[in-house]
Amino acid sequence: MTGPSWGPSLRAVTSGSPLVHCLTNIVVAGFTANVLLALGASPAMVENAEEAGPFATVAGAVLVNLGTLSGEREVAMRAAAAAARGASRPWVLDPVAVGALEHRTLLARELLNHRPAVIRGNASEIASLAGATGAAGRGVDSNMDSGAALGAAMDLARESGAVVAVSGAVDYVTDGRQVLEVPGGHILMTRVTGVGCALGAVMAALLAVVADPLQAGRDASAILKEAGARAASPPVPGTGTFAVRLLDCLGDLALEAAS
Amino acid sequence: MTGPSWGPSLRAVTSGSPLVHCLTNIVVAGFTANVLLALGASPAMVENAEEAGPFATVAGAVLVNLGTLSGEREVAMRAAAAAARGASRPWVLDPVAVGALEHRTLLARELLNHRPAVIRGNASEIASLAGATGAAGRGVDSNMDSGAALGAAMDLARESGAVVAVSGAVDYVTDGRQVLEVPGGHILMTRVTGVGCALGAVMAALLAVVADPLQAGRDASAILKEAGARAASPPVPGTGTFAVRLLDCLGDLALEAAS
Amino acid sequence: MTGPSWGPSLRAVTSGSPLVHCLTNIVVAGFTANVLLALGASPAMVENAEEAGPFATVAGAVLVNLGTLSGEREVAMRAAAAAARGASRPWVLDPVAVGALEHRTLLARELLNHRPAVIRGNASEIASLAGATGAAGRGVDSNMDSGAALGAAMDLARESGAVVAVSGAVDYVTDGRQVLEVPGGHILMTRVTGVGCALGAVMAALLAVVADPLQAGRDASAILKEAGARAASPPVPGTGTFAVRLLDCLGDLALEAAS
Repeated sequence: MTGPSWGPSLRAVTSGSPLVHCLTNIVVAGFTANVLLALGASPAMVENAEEAGPFATVAGAVLVNLGTLSGEREVAMRAAAAAARGASRPWVLDPVAVGALEHRTLLARELLNHRPAVIRGNASEIASLAGATGAAGRGVDSNMDSGAALGAAMDLARESGAVVAVSGAVDYVTDGRQVLEVPGGHILMTRVTGVGCALGAVMAALLAVVADPLQAGRDASAILKEAGARAASPPVPGTGTFAVRLLDCLGDLALEAAS
Repeated sequence: MTGPSWGPSLRAVTSGSPLVHCLTNIVVAGFTANVLLALGASPAMVENAEEAGPFATVAGAVLVNLGTLSGEREVAMRAAAAAARGASRPWVLDPVAVGALEHRTLLARELLNHRPAVIRGNASEIASLAGATGAAGRGVDSNMDSGAALGAAMDLARESGAVVAVSGAVDYVTDGRQVLEVPGGHILMTRVTGVGCALGAVMAALLAVVADPLQAGRDASAILKEAGARAASPPVPGTGTFAVRLLDCLGDLALEAAS
Repeated sequence: MTGPSWGPSLRAVTSGSPLVHCLTNIVVAGFTANVLLALGASPAMVENAEEAGPFATVAGAVLVNLGTLSGEREVAMRAAAAAARGASRPWVLDPVAVGALEHRTLLARELLNHRPAVIRGNASEIASLAGATGAAGRGVDSNMDSGAALGAAMDLARESGAVVAVSGAVDYVTDGRQVLEVPGGHILMTRVTGVGCALGAVMAALLAVVADPLQAGRDASAILKEAGARAASPPVPGTGTFAVRLLDCLGDLALEAAS
């Protein structure tokens, strides 16, 4: 009997327990850590100016999530991204709210110079970042469907050299040539804060143990969507219970992959 | 059959999904976002110096919660409050721990110049802020009953032009003339971190869609107290379960209001 | 019928409701507050440069957790530790990730000058801090067993004058002469973020009401291990449920101690 296609990737996480260096935001830091722990990875949040660079060189992979910026966090993000690239550590850029605010759009564009392995965002963020880099001139709709950003995502992937993942009812993961579709999940995943941000962290965990960033991005999406579907089946009474069950189900997937 | 008095306000949130710009603290940011999401609002935490002002002008309403201050967060709070006022966006001041620490008491007083639509705090905070503004000279008892701060609240409301909400076993909401009482809720709401802070955020969400700040404040209190009462009935084994059920019950209220 | 050995300590917390001033990290701040609230303590996170010192002098005890540093948080930590010592308030140092990063190792060493009552960490952190102070020259293994750091812990205790607690499958608490062992707990306590950090906060809560830091450290460990064991019995479906039940069980212990 064969397991799911992402089984080997998840097994590599649970057995390797990669150190994932997360520069993320104050809203989702705790949930992100719990998601990574549920899968067997080792999260560590280090986001000060002095330590973010050195720590990136010893981590298995790095996440840079622009959610709640600060002056010091920006310094740390630049240092971590530069150090990760210098040490050949893969890193993920999550351009939260890029497009809505020019300041972070410029920051995200600058960070692309440090060549993230994966860029993960929703349709609006990806289309905005593609437009800001000149990769695409498409307009931005903050409620746009993931599929509507697919062209922008492919442009951004070719322009940046990164794999680009667009999250939505269907997740798309592309290197600018191939496009992988990941359906599934559950609408409640959009009603709990941090699920998208945690997906970026899971992508980082997989990048630490899987050579191909296209596969890492696709498998991370599939793992989170599978856990989300299970967490809502049988139906849950609401978002509080769903968030708890999502962590439980991620742990189930890790156990199943390891066995 | 008529629904609860706050039904139309909540329905306006679930149907309008207002963008609520939260400058809040590291303890409750995640819970606050989950409370807003459960009600159908769209939370966004932007708290850096460069972006807080511009973002306040595109939000439906703004929350400024003084819980965990930092130098940069203070700059951002001043910018957000000023920008909100300039763009006629309603904003809520939550003067956490004002009275206990002079630094934040002065900050809160300064922020009043930007004319919040609502000020929400516990009895001690409201009495302290009233005293600091010269609106009232009453002493402060950190465990004081909400009713004991009612006079100070009315003074502060008249002095500041804001609706003032005092949280406690009974919540009082006043514009300095009328006083609305909101009984109910459950004692466990005081044993989970962030319930009071989340109430400030819910008030902001309602301000984005309800014209009258007195009504927005009263309805937000009533919604949270109803959810708290439901979350504890049947009795829960403890505060962990209560916090989960509180989110579930907020979602139930949103569903009921929308139907 | 006699209760557990830590019953009187926990009863002192529930009856005294000590104010615990926490300078901690963005990952665990919410969970830490909920753990303290479940036990009946009063958490307050104040971490800005202007307020951390003054607030430490009015708190019952202070926690300084190095998890997510920032320039301002470091200023605040130095001020809080100095003020706590000056006002004879006991404080706990949690040297998160010391050893892995030189910057924080130096910070932790410097903070020892302000004489924490308790230092709590895992084996690697304790061994590193002992080595950095010259108290011990032992090497560091990031996955080392708590017992392997016992010698370093005793050295560090004698060198610093603090009680040193090493967390692991067995917790060790020592003043450099006596060694108290606390077995129990559950492996899931290592799979939820913040349990170790919360233990440091619980030690602070007990220090506020118990004269002997050795007893406070031991009883805090025993309380958390008892709650962890109960939370996993009957078995839970995963880490999400475990974290919720851990809070519920802490509340049960507080109720039992108070009765």
